[in-house]
Amino acid sequence: MIVVMNPHVPQPTIDRVMAEIQRMGGTPHLSRGEFRTVIGAVGEEAKIDQAHLLSLDGVEKVFEIMKPYKLASREFHEDDSVVEIGGGSVPVVKVGGKHAVSMAGPCAVENREMLRTIAGHVRNAGATILRGGVYKPRTSPYSFQGHGEPALKWMRECGDELGMPICVEVMDTRQVETMEQYVDCFQIGARNMQNFDLLREVGKTRRAVLLKRGLAATVKDWLLSAEYVLSQGNRNVILCERGIKTFEDSARYSLDLTSIPVVRQWSHLPIIVDPSHCCGKREWVPAMAAAGMAAGAHGTIIEVHYCPSEAMCDGPQALLPETFVGLMEQLRKIAALVGKEFV
Amino acid sequence: MIVVMNPHVPQPTIDRVMAEIQRMGGTPHLSRGEFRTVIGAVGEEAKIDQAHLLSLDGVEKVFEIMKPYKLASREFHEDDSVVEIGGGSVPVVKVGGKHAVSMAGPCAVENREMLRTIAGHVRNAGATILRGGVYKPRTSPYSFQGHGEPALKWMRECGDELGMPICVEVMDTRQVETMEQYVDCFQIGARNMQNFDLLREVGKTRRAVLLKRGLAATVKDWLLSAEYVLSQGNRNVILCERGIKTFEDSARYSLDLTSIPVVRQWSHLPIIVDPSHCCGKREWVPAMAAAGMAAGAHGTIIEVHYCPSEAMCDGPQALLPETFVGLMEQLRKIAALVGKEFV
Amino acid sequence: MIVVMNPHVPQPTIDRVMAEIQRMGGTPHLSRGEFRTVIGAVGEEAKIDQAHLLSLDGVEKVFEIMKPYKLASREFHEDDSVVEIGGGSVPVVKVGGKHAVSMAGPCAVENREMLRTIAGHVRNAGATILRGGVYKPRTSPYSFQGHGEPALKWMRECGDELGMPICVEVMDTRQVETMEQYVDCFQIGARNMQNFDLLREVGKTRRAVLLKRGLAATVKDWLLSAEYVLSQGNRNVILCERGIKTFEDSARYSLDLTSIPVVRQWSHLPIIVDPSHCCGKREWVPAMAAAGMAAGAHGTIIEVHYCPSEAMCDGPQALLPETFVGLMEQLRKIAALVGKEFV
Amino acid sequence: MIVVMNPHVPQPTIDRVMAEIQRMGGTPHLSRGEFRTVIGAVGEEAKIDQAHLLSLDGVEKVFEIMKPYKLASREFHEDDSVVEIGGGSVPVVKVGGKHAVSMAGPCAVENREMLRTIAGHVRNAGATILRGGVYKPRTSPYSFQGHGEPALKWMRECGDELGMPICVEVMDTRQVETMEQYVDCFQIGARNMQNFDLLREVGKTRRAVLLKRGLAATVKDWLLSAEYVLSQGNRNVILCERGIKTFEDSARYSLDLTSIPVVRQWSHLPIIVDPSHCCGKREWVPAMAAAGMAAGAHGTIIEVHYCPSEAMCDGPQALLPETFVGLMEQLRKIAALVGKEFV
Repeated sequence: MIVVMNPHVPQPTIDRVMAEIQRMGGTPHLSRGEFRTVIGAVGEEAKIDQAHLLSLDGVEKVFEIMKPYKLASREFHEDDSVVEIGGGSVPVVKVGGKHAVSMAGPCAVENREMLRTIAGHVRNAGATILRGGVYKPRTSPYSFQGHGEPALKWMRECGDELGMPICVEVMDTRQVETMEQYVDCFQIGARNMQNFDLLREVGKTRRAVLLKRGLAATVKDWLLSAEYVLSQGNRNVILCERGIKTFEDSARYSLDLTSIPVVRQWSHLPIIVDPSHCCGKREWVPAMAAAGMAAGAHGTIIEVHYCPSEAMCDGPQALLPETFVGLMEQLRKIAALVGKEFV
Repeated sequence: MIVVMNPHVPQPTIDRVMAEIQRMGGTPHLSRGEFRTVIGAVGEEAKIDQAHLLSLDGVEKVFEIMKPYKLASREFHEDDSVVEIGGGSVPVVKVGGKHAVSMAGPCAVENREMLRTIAGHVRNAGATILRGGVYKPRTSPYSFQGHGEPALKWMRECGDELGMPICVEVMDTRQVETMEQYVDCFQIGARNMQNFDLLREVGKTRRAVLLKRGLAATVKDWLLSAEYVLSQGNRNVILCERGIKTFEDSARYSLDLTSIPVVRQWSHLPIIVDPSHCCGKREWVPAMAAAGMAAGAHGTIIEVHYCPSEAMCDGPQALLPETFVGLMEQLRKIAALVGKEFV
Repeated sequence: MIVVMNPHVPQPTIDRVMAEIQRMGGTPHLSRGEFRTVIGAVGEEAKIDQAHLLSLDGVEKVFEIMKPYKLASREFHEDDSVVEIGGGSVPVVKVGGKHAVSMAGPCAVENREMLRTIAGHVRNAGATILRGGVYKPRTSPYSFQGHGEPALKWMRECGDELGMPICVEVMDTRQVETMEQYVDCFQIGARNMQNFDLLREVGKTRRAVLLKRGLAATVKDWLLSAEYVLSQGNRNVILCERGIKTFEDSARYSLDLTSIPVVRQWSHLPIIVDPSHCCGKREWVPAMAAAGMAAGAHGTIIEVHYCPSEAMCDGPQALLPETFVGLMEQLRKIAALVGKEFV
Repeated sequence: MIVVMNPHVPQPTIDRVMAEIQRMGGTPHLSRGEFRTVIGAVGEEAKIDQAHLLSLDGVEKVFEIMKPYKLASREFHEDDSVVEIGGGSVPVVKVGGKHAVSMAGPCAVENREMLRTIAGHVRNAGATILRGGVYKPRTSPYSFQGHGEPALKWMRECGDELGMPICVEVMDTRQVETMEQYVDCFQIGARNMQNFDLLREVGKTRRAVLLKRGLAATVKDWLLSAEYVLSQGNRNVILCERGIKTFEDSARYSLDLTSIPVVRQWSHLPIIVDPSHCCGKREWVPAMAAAGMAAGAHGTIIEVHYCPSEAMCDGPQALLPETFVGLMEQLRKIAALVGKEFV
């Protein structure tokens, strides 16, 4: 860490900062310029508290030299991680490295019949993981909130029937124990990316975790949230770019595809792209799915509904099954151009 | 709601939209312009699903006419709400209308002694509610996470001793039952503003709820989150502006003080301002506290620490007790200018 | 336009709004709901002043039904525009529809020799338009500001020699007359996207105009800026997505690729992508160029430098010539997948 | 400047960076940690090109130690600057330090009569500078663009009559020469904050310059733009916070009042606040003006119109004269609380 002191600070103030660095286990290195004094804190950065240094008298700013996460960092794990989803009653699907994944399904599981129809469609088009919401995070308390455990059972049955691992959003720590019995992959939604208790709970399971990026999260914040899960012993984390909140109002969120090469440089974790929620309009979804794959994502998660106008939630962005078939064909070709393969 | 159709849509497409409006309980009103057809959906807006309308063929956009929240809205509750915090072992403190509140205390409760010292300082300076974190939402899993239940007891003891109701952040639905026995006011942190299960749980209690604004939340999103609490029967909601995430990087977050007159126009709920977390530097805190009061806030929540350089977390923004004394004097004068009074 | 009135407004207030709509040439349509009165203003929206309606007593909000731009809108020009750049001493290059373009060159023209070397490299790799800055918009007054007119001559010579039309940024209305003699395409930089006098001046010429998106501009703002140029009679406008300002700080700006399908739906104008300036790091540029093409862009504008560490400005994001060769190969394949062709 | 190298870089790569620092006039200081090598570049930072260092092989990041502006910085000018506006035919008005200023007037000068009426109102309420637009930056080419030079003459006459210096927006370098004959203070609008040629031109005059903050500008960007003016020899720069572009959509822009204490810490230049344009609704303007003064601003610039519903532009945010009278009374009291005085 690098500590920049205010201009003209007296020696005792400098000494105090150096002493604090030592107390936290670092080695201070003093460097005096003509205008500013700078103190380097050499040693394991995780031990040195940046906020504490900032609170000391005479400190103007503090820069991190190293990344604040470790298990998520490519520095300590050079090769791409390959996460396995499924096993047991369904085949294992790999995500990461050369392996691209297509997760698809309805936004919310409305009933058993509808789920089966959509699942059949997406399976035929080439999706290998079935997604579907049973607890729905809704901005308004008056909107449909999901069917809960019954829908969870329908998902499991449907996944088993079609040989597809299932991915379902978890919203509350109290749901983890029950859901662990049903799902192959927990989804952490954007609004819960910094629900730290929830991250810890899914970190204690051995299911894969699809961690969506928060609406106000930098890539660094996001990797720190992944670190919460990883630090509990669960190494099966997949990141999912789904858009950030910006001033642009044509789409609901701005898909920040630059995060894909950034994450791939900073971390070994697989990253996929969700083009459905950010667009909010189905016409724009295929272009953004293609763009995400071209940017180097390890797959996509896409909402599909056979008749979006009857969907109980988030209809406007759901693709029609026939559009999804064509899109999967194109995604396979793009994946091939960037050295990946959908299984 | 107003539905704008794409140019040149055929009649059956228009008919379908009108039928759907009727099916949801609204009355459709057709209006044809030279270039566009517009359909008004008259009736209770909460029943008419905007997303569903958007998913229909031929629909270009849908505008809301009414606010999507009801219990939080000034339309249905003209006068300012006055929320009461405390009672029982401590006096009742009122927030809202003419009543301004000063909540203050350490960021995290580090130990009993430190808590008492700080609580004494802020009480003497004029704070009436004691705040202190016992479960800490930390971006990094390697940072101090709070002392949990023991710290909760210290807070209760200290509040009782000084006659100050206490306000403590709740982070997980599983903490609600225990915390309800200790606290006078639940704080919902910015990162949990859309943790809908947590909102519902505190909504089932009768404790006051201090709802901080999410980092990516519009005023509308925020009032919808308040609606979650209110709709469970708990009407004691206080809003807290604490900054949003923007591109500006001098301060940690951008305090959006315009939200104060906006909230006061749209809602009857009290709103206070937290100048500590957004600034990230104690030098800027007094100016922002004063600005918040001048903008019409019903009070402030401020971090105070007698020796910020020993604070275990978030030291850089904590005010020294002597600065807090001077600030409170100024805030009282500003409050008087805008028709409010700190008790 | 749709005018929503405040609750409980008296009749004379409503009458006044209706009279104003008529005065501006519209036909008012009154619709009373249970809670709100809504007035539709039918007629040519461009004539009806939204701000004026908003300033009237009793008006809560005003929604636009139609797009506020006309010449830029696909509603009035269904087919993709194809813009021609060059002619005279250099061949014509087409952009738009099926025609993808590759613009490339150094950020700043440092000297004649360096320009020729880089131009040769990019020409061989398949670029058809030479770009290079001669007046440089620099955040700091102490940074290199460009060589001005001499560099303009080197660009012209170099373009003529290699048969490449040239694209150069214009920063000031006083430069337009001189530059018109040299350049085939004016570039309007992000910081000048709402320099309305400059837009009007290039609109009076018949050179192509590459209009970069402003850092804080919505797609609507951007198309309105295009409208400024178009309304002067110059129909040769090409849009260029180059990133917007968001809270994310890993890259300099966030490339908002969703703008590509949005622009293509709302407008007939060609749109290309600039992945160099937003990334700020050359490692991320190829991924974002590929993503832009996959999203449907009509080409790319990329900075190339043979030895970025000697570049006088913006070195970190310039691609090495050999990387650019490989990238162009990949972009050609992606273009083919989305129905476009680099000439 | 501090250069952080990638992990495991070989010695020659490090040597190259050190040599480049020396070539640019700095002294390199090498520091090797367990995981990273860090090179300090001691010397005048303005001479050392950050972008150039970033473009070198093996460089991961580069931190600035010093502020990139000099003339605008408080480091080199400890006391508050006091800018004088006017003189000659009108009295001098001081802004900065203890001197608060109230600039007010119509958004656009529509005609001589209206100007006189409004000017009289604001003068009586206590405004000392008359503001009014004669060239209007309008998002749409179809909106009213201002009356130009005739309106400039009306402004001058009206200012002389009432003894008020005048402040008028300049939009184009070609307007500077003419306007210099009429105005006491040039206003640079938000959209032109990085129109560097325009900054240089007004920097060559000796008129005061009111520099509005750009919609996407950090405080650092803004002070660098001030540096452009200052570096031409014109030291009469006043900053104006007027809101930044964020995701919040209740108001048009988010007034970033934290910029006030930040600017006052980093710079000696006076800073005032414009609450009119960001709000977009007159009801919210007084609260934000009061908040700006409480945050430490050196004054306000506010739009006033006697009958906003007939204003030709930007009506919704113009205050009525009677509201402005009451607001000025309150602002005087708040100014007194923060050690300032409206003359």
